Amino acid sequence: MGFFSKDIKSMDDLFVHTLQDIYYAEQQIAKNLPKMIEKASNPQLKQGFETHLQETKQQIGRLEEVFRMHGVEAKGVNCPAIDGILKEADEIAGEVEDHSVLDAALVAAAQAVEHYEMTRYGTLIAWAKELGRQDCAAVLKKNLDEEKATDKKLTEMAESRINLAAAE
Amino acid sequence: MGFFSKDIKSMDDLFVHTLQDIYYAEQQIAKNLPKMIEKASNPQLKQGFETHLQETKQQIGRLEEVFRMHGVEAKGVNCPAIDGILKEADEIAGEVEDHSVLDAALVAAAQAVEHYEMTRYGTLIAWAKELGRQDCAAVLKKNLDEEKATDKKLTEMAESRINLAAAE
Repeated sequence: MGFFSKDIKSMDDLFVHTLQDIYYAEQQIAKNLPKMIEKASNPQLKQGFETHLQETKQQIGRLEEVFRMHGVEAKGVNCPAIDGILKEADEIAGEVEDHSVLDAALVAAAQAVEHYEMTRYGTLIAWAKELGRQDCAAVLKKNLDEEKATDKKLTEMAESRINLAAAE
Repeated sequence: MGFFSKDIKSMDDLFVHTLQDIYYAEQQIAKNLPKMIEKASNPQLKQGFETHLQETKQQIGRLEEVFRMHGVEAKGVNCPAIDGILKEADEIAGEVEDHSVLDAALVAAAQAVEHYEMTRYGTLIAWAKELGRQDCAAVLKKNLDEEKATDKKLTEMAESRINLAAAE
């Protein structure tokens, strides 16, 4: 959320700020995914990251739609949480030599990203409903459902052959 | 995970590093919860944070048990992800005036923390199983189940009266 000014007085202000937080986060994720695609060795993982990059671009478009629906300008606010999560992902990508171990680490890093997005979308949907913005909630739910599906695919990879290969 | 040295060569190294990451994270969470207890107005939320502080202390003990079982020293590594998540939580706690809006923001901040823990425990359990450490996985699962239960309670609060009060 970062750089809060003192003007968060209502649930509406909090909703808009959190929307700005996830808007910034999605943009940072879109910037970081190409590095993760490059580092991944497992073709299934590489393809999964490529698909998620396309989804992330669509999700940014949906967030812009929610900003428009809510009558506020689409802009991001600095978000120390996603910066920290991506910093960890970047560090590990640069420090693990073995390809299969690196793939396992990349899956874990991507799941940390997904969980951050899931919690923010869950919060935004609850607040949109409380504010009577079922229309915004419905658009945000599309993003949440995609993040959950991506996390599920990553869990399946974590539990199956990527780690099996690394543990050999 | 932070401050990776180049010696992450195996899944075992990655498992130990991630254990150190969540060990540091849990300790930072235990340090930050008293501030969140103090800021919360809703008695149910305040009580929920107090309960979670006790659980967090037990979870730190369980992590020390896993370190012992795995034959490595219990120590933390710097974790930019939890630092970022807690920095956001701290900023929002200091910047929202209205009590009910602040409670809603605290619930959201706590859920971001829970989701980080859930993703790390999920990863550690998958890796422990791959490494043949069902014993470690079983202990880690206790922590994961507690985090999931806490997140569920926070979702119920987010969806019910805390936000209803704020949206009045």
